[in-house]
Amino acid sequence: MHEGRKINVGVLGATGTVGQRFIALLSEHPFFVLHALGASQRSAGKPYARAVTWKQTKYIPAVVREVVVKECKPECFRGCEIVFSGLDADVAGPIEEAFRRAEFAVFSNAKNHRRDPNVPLIVPLVNASHFSMIPQQRSLHNPPLQKGFIVTNANCSTTGVVIPLAALEKAFGPIESCMITTMQAISGAGYPGVPSLDIIDNIVPYIGGEEEKMEWETLKILGGVSEGEDGRKIFDMHARQPLRVSAQCNRVPVIEGHTECVSVRFARRPPPSPQQVREALQAYTSDAWTMSCPSAPRHTIFVHEEPDRPQPRLDRDYQSGAGVNVGRVRQCPVLDIKFVVLANNVAIGAATSSIVNAELAVCKGVI
Amino acid sequence: MHEGRKINVGVLGATGTVGQRFIALLSEHPFFVLHALGASQRSAGKPYARAVTWKQTKYIPAVVREVVVKECKPECFRGCEIVFSGLDADVAGPIEEAFRRAEFAVFSNAKNHRRDPNVPLIVPLVNASHFSMIPQQRSLHNPPLQKGFIVTNANCSTTGVVIPLAALEKAFGPIESCMITTMQAISGAGYPGVPSLDIIDNIVPYIGGEEEKMEWETLKILGGVSEGEDGRKIFDMHARQPLRVSAQCNRVPVIEGHTECVSVRFARRPPPSPQQVREALQAYTSDAWTMSCPSAPRHTIFVHEEPDRPQPRLDRDYQSGAGVNVGRVRQCPVLDIKFVVLANNVAIGAATSSIVNAELAVCKGVI
Amino acid sequence: MHEGRKINVGVLGATGTVGQRFIALLSEHPFFVLHALGASQRSAGKPYARAVTWKQTKYIPAVVREVVVKECKPECFRGCEIVFSGLDADVAGPIEEAFRRAEFAVFSNAKNHRRDPNVPLIVPLVNASHFSMIPQQRSLHNPPLQKGFIVTNANCSTTGVVIPLAALEKAFGPIESCMITTMQAISGAGYPGVPSLDIIDNIVPYIGGEEEKMEWETLKILGGVSEGEDGRKIFDMHARQPLRVSAQCNRVPVIEGHTECVSVRFARRPPPSPQQVREALQAYTSDAWTMSCPSAPRHTIFVHEEPDRPQPRLDRDYQSGAGVNVGRVRQCPVLDIKFVVLANNVAIGAATSSIVNAELAVCKGVI
Amino acid sequence: MHEGRKINVGVLGATGTVGQRFIALLSEHPFFVLHALGASQRSAGKPYARAVTWKQTKYIPAVVREVVVKECKPECFRGCEIVFSGLDADVAGPIEEAFRRAEFAVFSNAKNHRRDPNVPLIVPLVNASHFSMIPQQRSLHNPPLQKGFIVTNANCSTTGVVIPLAALEKAFGPIESCMITTMQAISGAGYPGVPSLDIIDNIVPYIGGEEEKMEWETLKILGGVSEGEDGRKIFDMHARQPLRVSAQCNRVPVIEGHTECVSVRFARRPPPSPQQVREALQAYTSDAWTMSCPSAPRHTIFVHEEPDRPQPRLDRDYQSGAGVNVGRVRQCPVLDIKFVVLANNVAIGAATSSIVNAELAVCKGVI
Repeated sequence: MHEGRKINVGVLGATGTVGQRFIALLSEHPFFVLHALGASQRSAGKPYARAVTWKQTKYIPAVVREVVVKECKPECFRGCEIVFSGLDADVAGPIEEAFRRAEFAVFSNAKNHRRDPNVPLIVPLVNASHFSMIPQQRSLHNPPLQKGFIVTNANCSTTGVVIPLAALEKAFGPIESCMITTMQAISGAGYPGVPSLDIIDNIVPYIGGEEEKMEWETLKILGGVSEGEDGRKIFDMHARQPLRVSAQCNRVPVIEGHTECVSVRFARRPPPSPQQVREALQAYTSDAWTMSCPSAPRHTIFVHEEPDRPQPRLDRDYQSGAGVNVGRVRQCPVLDIKFVVLANNVAIGAATSSIVNAELAVCKGVI
Repeated sequence: MHEGRKINVGVLGATGTVGQRFIALLSEHPFFVLHALGASQRSAGKPYARAVTWKQTKYIPAVVREVVVKECKPECFRGCEIVFSGLDADVAGPIEEAFRRAEFAVFSNAKNHRRDPNVPLIVPLVNASHFSMIPQQRSLHNPPLQKGFIVTNANCSTTGVVIPLAALEKAFGPIESCMITTMQAISGAGYPGVPSLDIIDNIVPYIGGEEEKMEWETLKILGGVSEGEDGRKIFDMHARQPLRVSAQCNRVPVIEGHTECVSVRFARRPPPSPQQVREALQAYTSDAWTMSCPSAPRHTIFVHEEPDRPQPRLDRDYQSGAGVNVGRVRQCPVLDIKFVVLANNVAIGAATSSIVNAELAVCKGVI
Repeated sequence: MHEGRKINVGVLGATGTVGQRFIALLSEHPFFVLHALGASQRSAGKPYARAVTWKQTKYIPAVVREVVVKECKPECFRGCEIVFSGLDADVAGPIEEAFRRAEFAVFSNAKNHRRDPNVPLIVPLVNASHFSMIPQQRSLHNPPLQKGFIVTNANCSTTGVVIPLAALEKAFGPIESCMITTMQAISGAGYPGVPSLDIIDNIVPYIGGEEEKMEWETLKILGGVSEGEDGRKIFDMHARQPLRVSAQCNRVPVIEGHTECVSVRFARRPPPSPQQVREALQAYTSDAWTMSCPSAPRHTIFVHEEPDRPQPRLDRDYQSGAGVNVGRVRQCPVLDIKFVVLANNVAIGAATSSIVNAELAVCKGVI
Repeated sequence: MHEGRKINVGVLGATGTVGQRFIALLSEHPFFVLHALGASQRSAGKPYARAVTWKQTKYIPAVVREVVVKECKPECFRGCEIVFSGLDADVAGPIEEAFRRAEFAVFSNAKNHRRDPNVPLIVPLVNASHFSMIPQQRSLHNPPLQKGFIVTNANCSTTGVVIPLAALEKAFGPIESCMITTMQAISGAGYPGVPSLDIIDNIVPYIGGEEEKMEWETLKILGGVSEGEDGRKIFDMHARQPLRVSAQCNRVPVIEGHTECVSVRFARRPPPSPQQVREALQAYTSDAWTMSCPSAPRHTIFVHEEPDRPQPRLDRDYQSGAGVNVGRVRQCPVLDIKFVVLANNVAIGAATSSIVNAELAVCKGVI
């Protein structure tokens, strides 16, 4: 437990879209203290307020306006125990590794290490147990790391769907197959991101690599950690029961909040009723909440009763976007149960997840 | 065949959204001649240009500007053989029946008679064969009707999906199950329709009654016409092989063009490959085109190769929206094949379908 | 002064768009206590949560969920000293008068009494001095009212522009002419309001009656209260120096926040420089703030330095929308100075203004 | 006159937004024949259909699909008499000059030469007379050019406003001052252009350099060609009567069509009435139409009577966007007359203007 101590943290990629969110959230955090901001060489040396093109609806926190931006090098982040990475995928890989090697706890929103067999891919409201991989990750260095590690969070669209899926598996046992069609907000593509000419009065039924990510990440997150024949730990990719996931990803003209139409088939026959599903979703509690992580939402899953909810504009800010919304739970004529998920892609889908992961690490004593 | 003769037609609900499309299309038709326009009592008696709040991007056709709008009563439509109905569902039922009784051929875009066991529900690029029900429909009147009948077209979102499904069943045999998630344009809700406060920067994951319509209509359209024990014809609702359809319908901030993410499972094992599916879709030809219906599209289904197409804004006007667009044909990890459909909801999804249905009736000698 | 006492208040038109905002704001007010909610007969008798179609991004305050909605009759509002009216203009007139006659202080957002020569039209950050008309308004009743009165606030687009104009007149003397082009958010039209088909990918360069309202209301608000020959008080409509106002009003696809391009010519020659104007705007302090009205913003006018601000999406929520934003102050080749104003039409442009007006009335001892 | 002869033309910047429009328009032109396409080195050598990311709603013209794109060098354009330039401003300057030097007639949409005192800035429906500068432009080369010259067209927002201003000056004499507030479509910024995060549910009240362009270009276009003391021709910048122009430019979430709120003051007292203005606008005929330029619109200015028109989505495609729309002509309390203009920024505001300019040059015998 953190027991009141303050922990200095840094943000890598501080001027980007995710970096801005990290800063907005961390500037009001009960025990993380913003200590260093890193960005590209172009920004380094400038006060943050001048380095950034701030695109949030809340103004730049006063506490960081004059902070001088540094380069993303471990030696510039002395005094930090944790770094949050909002780096772009084209540079995140080696930078995050350098910070790990320098004994920082790295919580990354980038995709680079998600498929690493020794890096946990943690959606904090789902698989906090995957922190158990950290010792093995550290042991692979020579000499073994004492404190450094990397934990990633999932793709924003994966995050939205695995939370209710985890709740359903907890209540009703393995899911056998899952069909997902996403309608993803433009903020998921960063800034400048989606050109307005491509998306006003339009849908783009394609997001490069997204479907593959969702289909793969879901297995890693919902799967367990087993022991291989050589005694090494492995992410088992939902090995106890093959889970087939099919995703269709679309970009829509919504600023924030990914809406996902989901249908699932359970292994168990007969499957649960819609009402049982509603109750299980509503009752689901995350370890993060139980362990009092300050950024974890009280209601992991808010289940809407109105027939036309959740809607991104109206529901994305509930609990500051730290939980997910589910609605329209009903029977599916092809699989068993279908429903609609709404997850705030820039909160639980990105920065908030990394922060709750770090809170979990503190609460679990990994940091 | 029509052999060059001109056929006078009328439009019921001429001032509404669908009515305006009927007029725009019929004002340039090779053999249908706009002869009478009907609307509510409030509009009756006024020149069309003053009765209507014209919301099309092409200006009101000169030929109808001064036409005096009539009430929707058969006696006001003397001289017409055909009426196209763009009436609202709350009034369409009895009015369309009155016109049928008065020996008009009624082509309706309203939902009222779609579930009538003697009324064909015809998507012109799919099930022209269902015109075979007309004699039985006429025979139910006393004395039997000589010329009058009602034919409806399908819901706009149903239309988009049954066309590729029909092509696939023609090439590969029965489909066993089909999952559809729609992203439907606001124009599908008429005018004033969807309030802007509900849809800018938003998705509404619910359209009242739409999912049930899609799940039911698909069976009627893709099914055959069989003979019951009493010798009467019945729509068999795809009886040769149970077909399960699951629809999830969403409203999105797009003006025109319904995008649908579809996944299907074939009865046949092994299923066709994506490439075979692509070729079958591309090769599919409708009776309407074969019979030279002037409003039928040359390419019933345009198959896109680019990974990010079809898109509503870019592709909805191809062939004046009279065909459908399909893209992203690929394997589905849960069912067999998934793909994206784009159909212009106000063209093939509404007015154009009714008009091609009427052209088919003329070509088949039903009129 | 209110000296810690709580004051019971009611909301008329509680289920409408403005009514919802009143409730959201009043549910957290330091000294106003929501005591009664009124709506149409259709809603009366139902718990608020079931009577309303709640369209706010914050959920219904718990404190009003179960409150039973009443009819808008004075006898149903016993115990309230103040009523806030979010009624539609087609019913607001007589209802507000009935409440005044029954000795309620009525703060109205409706347009009905704005042109009444005895009713102050108060933008709380501008002309709090117009409360001086209240005694005369009361005296016109027989017997004279002891407590009842009506105060209206201005049209949402007028409010945005008169605040900086007042600041400029205070600093530099009379303005001679003012050109305004507005780009107004859809929420200004209420719900259902603007059909989405009319405004997505579109501008509507017309809002019925809006330009006349802006041109007239500006004179009443910026003018003083003089004494007529008969000793009666009159609103002088800026009589000390004729002020010509020209407004061009447009509806744009923005959810919240009216943007206005303004250009002014001062009577004084030479006119102030852009820098002097910037400083005067920034320095302007309202009576409402000076008198510690809790809903008044610290910065009446926030002056942006970045060349591309204010923008509605990014700046409308600053200070909960209780102030106004000004940017791009520069010379005008035709008049003297031009600038851009952004005002939150549902906050300072509507409910917030009424509430600050009521706070002013309490602070000034009118209530 | 062209007397039936075909003229080979090339397009510079053929893969860009404006280039795509040039190609769409020229592929159906009665006497210009697409002969060569030029783009950056990256595209050169590829068939056009593969070099371009086509973003038009009409598909790539078959005639150019297989045309191999060339570099933008004069030697690659042999056989062309005319080149249309849709080049970006950062490269357009020297390339256009090289083509002029090589004796091509260059019609440019780029801003680079607009302020050149020997290059006409021609809005084809306004100041075709400025072609009289061509001989002087040619004579400045050594040896003087025989055929080469550059003509530019105006900024898209300037074009919209100078057409009605020209009509008004023709009818009522000089305009003294003009206030303009624009609401400009995103397509005016090219592709990728405006990020969607900046413009959905938003207005950006700033477009870099745009206001200065409008204020300056208007003077050059509406001014005459006089003779200086040294006998040289000069553009007189409206010298006969000083004209003050003040522009405020905004970006709005509209795909195509710039809407502009305009107010003018005439030199003549009393000024014309709104009805006289309406008639003068409607009656205005361009030289381009009189000289039978095939791309000139029959109605240079379409005057709308409905109070809420023109609207970009409904009116931008009238006459293929080759004319302008005006509505809401009424008195202005500050200047004399105010009205709303809608001009299609990618048609008359860009490619169409260049093409009509070229048609004018042919008709006038300059080519």
